[in-house]
Amino acid sequence: MITVAQARAALLDLVAPLPAEDVQLIDAAGRVLAREVRARRDQPPFAASSMDGYAVKSAEVERHAMFKVIGESAAGHGFDGTVGAGQAVRIFTGAPLPKGADFVVIQEDVARSGDLITIADAPGAKDNIRPLGADFRAGTAMSAPRILTPQDVALLAAMNLPQVPVFRKPQVALMATGDELVMPGEDPGPDQIIASNSFGLRAMLQGLGATVRMLPIARDTVSSLRMAFELAQGADVIVTIGGASVGDHDLVGQVAADLGMDRSFYKVAMRPGKPLMAGRLNGAAMVGLPGNPVSAMVCGHVFLAPMIRAMLGLGHAMPPLRKAILDADLPANGPREHYMRAIVDGDRINAFDNQDSSLLTILSQANALLVRAPNDPAIRAGTQVDCLPF
Amino acid sequence: MITVAQARAALLDLVAPLPAEDVQLIDAAGRVLAREVRARRDQPPFAASSMDGYAVKSAEVERHAMFKVIGESAAGHGFDGTVGAGQAVRIFTGAPLPKGADFVVIQEDVARSGDLITIADAPGAKDNIRPLGADFRAGTAMSAPRILTPQDVALLAAMNLPQVPVFRKPQVALMATGDELVMPGEDPGPDQIIASNSFGLRAMLQGLGATVRMLPIARDTVSSLRMAFELAQGADVIVTIGGASVGDHDLVGQVAADLGMDRSFYKVAMRPGKPLMAGRLNGAAMVGLPGNPVSAMVCGHVFLAPMIRAMLGLGHAMPPLRKAILDADLPANGPREHYMRAIVDGDRINAFDNQDSSLLTILSQANALLVRAPNDPAIRAGTQVDCLPF
Repeated sequence: MITVAQARAALLDLVAPLPAEDVQLIDAAGRVLAREVRARRDQPPFAASSMDGYAVKSAEVERHAMFKVIGESAAGHGFDGTVGAGQAVRIFTGAPLPKGADFVVIQEDVARSGDLITIADAPGAKDNIRPLGADFRAGTAMSAPRILTPQDVALLAAMNLPQVPVFRKPQVALMATGDELVMPGEDPGPDQIIASNSFGLRAMLQGLGATVRMLPIARDTVSSLRMAFELAQGADVIVTIGGASVGDHDLVGQVAADLGMDRSFYKVAMRPGKPLMAGRLNGAAMVGLPGNPVSAMVCGHVFLAPMIRAMLGLGHAMPPLRKAILDADLPANGPREHYMRAIVDGDRINAFDNQDSSLLTILSQANALLVRAPNDPAIRAGTQVDCLPF
Repeated sequence: MITVAQARAALLDLVAPLPAEDVQLIDAAGRVLAREVRARRDQPPFAASSMDGYAVKSAEVERHAMFKVIGESAAGHGFDGTVGAGQAVRIFTGAPLPKGADFVVIQEDVARSGDLITIADAPGAKDNIRPLGADFRAGTAMSAPRILTPQDVALLAAMNLPQVPVFRKPQVALMATGDELVMPGEDPGPDQIIASNSFGLRAMLQGLGATVRMLPIARDTVSSLRMAFELAQGADVIVTIGGASVGDHDLVGQVAADLGMDRSFYKVAMRPGKPLMAGRLNGAAMVGLPGNPVSAMVCGHVFLAPMIRAMLGLGHAMPPLRKAILDADLPANGPREHYMRAIVDGDRINAFDNQDSSLLTILSQANALLVRAPNDPAIRAGTQVDCLPF
């Protein structure tokens, strides 16, 4: 058996950043920018007023000064002429500052009578002008890689970039295996259960930025498994669920080997999730997850998530562990790294008493995995521990 | 002017939880469960082995005990007969426990020779059996409302619920207004800028769980605005951007009033985002956001997010403020509640020096808004402050 860190390193060796593709800006949020992009223009593209008011010459600004209003500058419609001595142009927020003017007196400080305005209040020193390029200049870069936020999308729009290069989404083929499985909504026989892992993993993988191809449930026969692998062709990652244990009925590894899988490892020293198999199959990464529902989902968080991130160009960073303070004593851990279902609340954490790897009700209540090192001795309430929030 | 809290309360008065709709489980992740649902079956539906091994009678389990293997129980294919004295059934993980057996000896503890097995190691007290219904019983409830996680989806599948009731997604019509705006990819005139707010807000609203209808840019004319409002019909929320200030060219409020808007408030004492207008228009909630890019996005976080959450049945909870420790002194705040662009790193927070509401470059670097109360005195580095993470 290998350690979790060794398994993760081997899995990351199976994948690489995917090629970039251009997407419309409207579809870019949540995607990963693949390379630096640069603004196509200055923003603002002209000196602009930051207030509603009157554009004048700053040298003439003083209390009781009078100006003649000679025109108007509105957003989208600047004033064509030049502001001369004793003249003012009515101006609105965001509108271009007219030539000749270098100050905007806000309208609250002005009394207007016909074409004449008088500065009524002391206007202060602030010129209420946003200089050309105050936000960014043409050529200003947005760095990559980064997961594009709504704020980034707004900035890319302002930069006049209608399309952006993003890493292609990884395509994951998901194959549940086992004679005991039926799909939700079907009528299971007395020895059967509902396929739940593939639904949970599909949601998780989509949330991570992958597209998911759900394959038909493969039965515990060579021919059924071969057909399912056939349907997985073209995927970047093939994930099998179940059938990777040592039981006589676990054919997945055997069929994958027949199809040419180059196995990189088998079995990881972790709880839950001991049977985990990985390798390369016809250019795709193949990961065999255990069939226990909780094991499969935990392996998804611990192994599939970093693989998807790596394919999205986000590097080989470990899953983001955070610190929390243990609320109740925990017994010594066994020889395998343990991912305990837990609830984090603020900076406190509580592991569930029942850590059986078949309990989806517990997993559904959990919001984090409390991570314990192999052979970690018993720890007391108040100790700081590592956890992996969902 | 009213306070931010008053404005938010008035906005929440304009909306209510939307009706429920049934969606396929495969589309349920991230949606909000609208009412309690109950498991249609027990899980596991039978007592099952948690290990690969041999099912026997516990009374006969001791070191060197011998058993005759009379059959096999695999996942999906149980053993039909009954385990008698001195008998064992080969059993695999997840398979139904045969009648007559109440203990599974794991295979590592057994030596097998033909049809005979001998317990080689002391097998311990653990019976390696998952009782019927250990995870959940038929009728076990999943409570609502809740945002369905991948873990929840796995549990719902195991409960054999192929469809689940979720709150309908709010539909938001997004209307950018102003003669100065062109769409990304167009060639702006010398007085024009690119419409960026609608792109950023669309991404934000979709991330919150809304569907967004982007309307054509409305020009600063009554007829153009009327046509845009026409195209917004049927939306749950109409959001206008720009044109809600007091400038002579800000026609949005006037046109909305002509169309029958019942105004609930106008102007909020906040920075950025002072001009903010709201009311009810033909059964929809209408919100008029300021046109400054940063103001519009901040108003989205502070006002639109709680409205969307309320429509999704998640209640009237305030946006989740968190605490952070200030890294550098801040001057006294003015009379308006200030949402300062900031970077949170762990439990530390740093506000940007330049808080001009036109700077998308700053907003794109920020990951939180530092919230300051009206007339908050100057505060020192090391003080604990509130922030709203993006």
